[in-house]
Amino acid sequence: MRAATFSDGAVRLVERPAPVPGPGEVRIAVTLAGICNTDIELLKGYMGFSGIPGHEFVGVVDTAPEHPELLGRRVTAEINLGCGDCPTCRTSGPRHCPNRTTLGIAGKDGAFADYLTMPAALLHPVPDNVGDAAAVFVEPLAAALEPGQQLHLRADMSVLVLGDGKLGILCACALRRLCPGLVLAGRHQAKLAIAAGQGVAVRRADVAALRREFGRFDVVIEATGRPEGLADALDLIRPEGTIVLKTTTFAATPVNMARVVVDEITLLGSRCGDFRLATAYLRDGLVDVAPLVEATYPFDAFPEALAAASRQGAMKVLVDLRRR
Amino acid sequence: MRAATFSDGAVRLVERPAPVPGPGEVRIAVTLAGICNTDIELLKGYMGFSGIPGHEFVGVVDTAPEHPELLGRRVTAEINLGCGDCPTCRTSGPRHCPNRTTLGIAGKDGAFADYLTMPAALLHPVPDNVGDAAAVFVEPLAAALEPGQQLHLRADMSVLVLGDGKLGILCACALRRLCPGLVLAGRHQAKLAIAAGQGVAVRRADVAALRREFGRFDVVIEATGRPEGLADALDLIRPEGTIVLKTTTFAATPVNMARVVVDEITLLGSRCGDFRLATAYLRDGLVDVAPLVEATYPFDAFPEALAAASRQGAMKVLVDLRRR
Amino acid sequence: MRAATFSDGAVRLVERPAPVPGPGEVRIAVTLAGICNTDIELLKGYMGFSGIPGHEFVGVVDTAPEHPELLGRRVTAEINLGCGDCPTCRTSGPRHCPNRTTLGIAGKDGAFADYLTMPAALLHPVPDNVGDAAAVFVEPLAAALEPGQQLHLRADMSVLVLGDGKLGILCACALRRLCPGLVLAGRHQAKLAIAAGQGVAVRRADVAALRREFGRFDVVIEATGRPEGLADALDLIRPEGTIVLKTTTFAATPVNMARVVVDEITLLGSRCGDFRLATAYLRDGLVDVAPLVEATYPFDAFPEALAAASRQGAMKVLVDLRRR
Amino acid sequence: MRAATFSDGAVRLVERPAPVPGPGEVRIAVTLAGICNTDIELLKGYMGFSGIPGHEFVGVVDTAPEHPELLGRRVTAEINLGCGDCPTCRTSGPRHCPNRTTLGIAGKDGAFADYLTMPAALLHPVPDNVGDAAAVFVEPLAAALEPGQQLHLRADMSVLVLGDGKLGILCACALRRLCPGLVLAGRHQAKLAIAAGQGVAVRRADVAALRREFGRFDVVIEATGRPEGLADALDLIRPEGTIVLKTTTFAATPVNMARVVVDEITLLGSRCGDFRLATAYLRDGLVDVAPLVEATYPFDAFPEALAAASRQGAMKVLVDLRRR
Repeated sequence: MRAATFSDGAVRLVERPAPVPGPGEVRIAVTLAGICNTDIELLKGYMGFSGIPGHEFVGVVDTAPEHPELLGRRVTAEINLGCGDCPTCRTSGPRHCPNRTTLGIAGKDGAFADYLTMPAALLHPVPDNVGDAAAVFVEPLAAALEPGQQLHLRADMSVLVLGDGKLGILCACALRRLCPGLVLAGRHQAKLAIAAGQGVAVRRADVAALRREFGRFDVVIEATGRPEGLADALDLIRPEGTIVLKTTTFAATPVNMARVVVDEITLLGSRCGDFRLATAYLRDGLVDVAPLVEATYPFDAFPEALAAASRQGAMKVLVDLRRR
Repeated sequence: MRAATFSDGAVRLVERPAPVPGPGEVRIAVTLAGICNTDIELLKGYMGFSGIPGHEFVGVVDTAPEHPELLGRRVTAEINLGCGDCPTCRTSGPRHCPNRTTLGIAGKDGAFADYLTMPAALLHPVPDNVGDAAAVFVEPLAAALEPGQQLHLRADMSVLVLGDGKLGILCACALRRLCPGLVLAGRHQAKLAIAAGQGVAVRRADVAALRREFGRFDVVIEATGRPEGLADALDLIRPEGTIVLKTTTFAATPVNMARVVVDEITLLGSRCGDFRLATAYLRDGLVDVAPLVEATYPFDAFPEALAAASRQGAMKVLVDLRRR
Repeated sequence: MRAATFSDGAVRLVERPAPVPGPGEVRIAVTLAGICNTDIELLKGYMGFSGIPGHEFVGVVDTAPEHPELLGRRVTAEINLGCGDCPTCRTSGPRHCPNRTTLGIAGKDGAFADYLTMPAALLHPVPDNVGDAAAVFVEPLAAALEPGQQLHLRADMSVLVLGDGKLGILCACALRRLCPGLVLAGRHQAKLAIAAGQGVAVRRADVAALRREFGRFDVVIEATGRPEGLADALDLIRPEGTIVLKTTTFAATPVNMARVVVDEITLLGSRCGDFRLATAYLRDGLVDVAPLVEATYPFDAFPEALAAASRQGAMKVLVDLRRR
Repeated sequence: MRAATFSDGAVRLVERPAPVPGPGEVRIAVTLAGICNTDIELLKGYMGFSGIPGHEFVGVVDTAPEHPELLGRRVTAEINLGCGDCPTCRTSGPRHCPNRTTLGIAGKDGAFADYLTMPAALLHPVPDNVGDAAAVFVEPLAAALEPGQQLHLRADMSVLVLGDGKLGILCACALRRLCPGLVLAGRHQAKLAIAAGQGVAVRRADVAALRREFGRFDVVIEATGRPEGLADALDLIRPEGTIVLKTTTFAATPVNMARVVVDEITLLGSRCGDFRLATAYLRDGLVDVAPLVEATYPFDAFPEALAAASRQGAMKVLVDLRRR
């Protein structure tokens, strides 16, 4: 099969034997896959990754020795493969298993290839009214919904999403269903317009102007993708408020801890989320992800796709495994 | 009256008119006051403080125009003076009022003087069986108990207190009443022995050894007083666990935010606490603060007391206002 | 103006002077009002009510001495008028103020009249795309959403709504946005079909069959309107689970407290909710209330409307104040 | 061995073969056992129990094929034996396992016998400074501490314990460590005096007088042992407050559900608790259980002991297995 690999900072398009499903696994023919900022970080050396990247995808089950009922199903899949045996797996599931592999990120080949294998238990069928391009967003939309799973976001809370990149827009469009007064602040008129078009209140990311208009917020979701975003979040959070950290920064971030301590602020890391909820949001039209797609490349142009996705401010770039 | 002042990095012993209680206030003749690390930071310039420091104290009410029933009472006092009018004061009390002054820290002269004034509503009477030296610990003990007010610490949680300074020892001795398996880790045999003498399980602060013996903890209370403490805490916390930050560091602290995000860790700032609870702990002998006192100086030797308190590793230094 | 009154168990249509707005109040010309089960209970003597009932309504502001900007606005309004001065009002708002009046329920004339008065602060503008009939549902939909404000309903929780009356259907249609696996169980095929038409999984209310298919639930929302509903809920809740009580039963309900204690179950009363959230749900089409309307009567046929609403199993009956 | 059995409402003293430890189990020679109200209910037919009752005990390990290190250890034991395999056991432990047996209550012979067997994993060693009579209280004290494990009881909450029986006194003495302002209300001067002697604020159980003095409480712990207790609790709880139910009543209790719903009150069942925490409380002298012991009978007078424990208002009756 065709596959893209990362190794020592280089991308290669290679031929590989298609993977064979192990016990409990099925094989999926990948239809479409999305490039995530994490992929770009992996190429730079994050996690010491070497292998086939790709963890946002939709595909069709094509080999399912133990699950014939899944053959031909259009699916996405959760990306954390827990060991199933440790206390974490038993009490809170695979997402934080210390022995886990992660699809396309750690120890498990991913979706930038014609085929991948996954445990049947991690698959999520895609509803008929959710197109392939939308289905690729199940994983990032689940991540965008995760703050509402970690925190009890009540409707009367004041919530600010900082950052108008892909993740910030998804967070704002998704979480305003819980907090109708939610505000998205960013720096790019065109990006803010995408969220505004879905009913989100948007503002320029100007700390002083936000403070004047809204005071300090109960919850700030930091999704700027920049280490400096946290300083702005700290200027905009009320005492005893909560900053949700969605930015995965690989450099150490300097933090004004005196402010955190004196004002008894909570910083809460937030990563993956609930696939079933994200799928329901897409099926029911609660978030429209179509405007977030910047371009779709055929797989054979994967290096060009990666370059496009790496541009500062790029929106979602998709890779089509069916087109040559 | 005699008073110690901080101004432009200098300590001075001066004569000042005794303060006059304002509306709702009483005047207190200070008996004994404690030097806190925050006082030392104030002298270095933290908060741009200029005035009389001192926020840990016990004294006797000597003027109480509106509250004659308080005359002669031995008291401590909460240190945050809220405006009483803002939404924060109305819903959660004065501790986080944006307009507050703080005794000996911001906008309100403190306890290193013969007299101070305080609103009667903030006083806490000292039970007869709590001596003056112990009463000075009501404020820091309340701070040590605060993690149990912010978090629901259940008895089956694994809790580590990092740091065997004054605050770490107080946290460990106090919070083990909630979590009997709590462990205190530090670097000083003699200090660990103080906690061990009160029944706390103590260990050397060796990350690898702690990981081998206990695995990762549900809760880590970072009380090392050093910015590097947080990195150790991050190595010792489980995914989805909570690190309580008790160290007030005035330099920006570099944080490995990728670890916080990927493992969905909570960092929770923690400062002052509940005086009534701390007073009950002292009255009922749940914590013995006597071994934490390093020395007591007469007020006229305040500069020497401050020097003693500033030594690396110093325990609590008290200043006696009655002795000359 | 025309008004319907309840007094000593009798309904009367009377002429009354139109109310005059007090300080901070506006006057609203009622357009459409809904009959709630509580109205029927009031007529039977609940709360010793005597006056003009009606608390679900939409209308147009027609007198607004202090708020000219509100003139002509189409609005609904929250129904609890707090005193504004007590600790409850200051810390958690008017909903539980011990001194409150409640529109059309206690101490405040309600919406079955040509005009009512309300404090401007309690008004909620109705979005243009929400019709009058839908706007009458803001109040009951807010109540249906309230369990998600009281409890942190995570997407992976198993949730059962018991009861396919108006409130049960609203709860199911609204709360499945939070918990996509939610199940509604009831006894009426036609009513279950309303919820199923909006994507809710529905089942016959057969305790044994539900137990076989789903096991016990994390959360059961008891909305049967019958005192016996709680016994079924207790048979369907898991140990340490939560039963939300939406049924307001005015007779004492016998409860198997041994089961509650031994299995450490939580019973949580649940009443009104957040109007802004309910308005957003209607504006964004997250719940379709149209199928819940059984009939609309002109105001002059109010007694007939009340009779229709009192029939066992009746859906929402509306009263149109503009039609004669 | 000697054993007491319940069967068809009759108590019998019989000779039985001593039990043989199964896999993972040890055998314990019972030293002292306490009679609980549940035992009296079992005799009346609760749970259809037939066998050897007794679940509050202390004893010495005398056979331990797989755990020789436990031989001769003085121990108590948790009473719920989970299956270890079900989702409940895996995620929250054995206390709510649907397949569990419970020592002396359901499916497992108990402590009113010379010997019993228990899984080694459920044993708790008794500290040297905790006498045998005190050790028998580990189980009921754990139950008394359970509200603080289920709810986050903060020091500034107003808490009322209703009922001055054994459990009410234990709750009050234990939970005031969390909430220093806690009040115990009861009907018996002598019993209230036991709690007052340990520093608890006590009052007559007069609803009107309590309301006048304290207003409504944030939390009421209902431990009256009478079904009517809940009505008093409902009169004393604030809107949105929590009533913890410690009374195991086997008759259905009529509840004013309108009050629960309208005021959005939480009723929380509460049963067993954390043995390690209870053991620490006894070891550290945080609760003195000695005044709760009414009498100690030799085992051969078990019927007389049971009669004494069954008297209205009886305190704890112990049964001594060593004395003849």
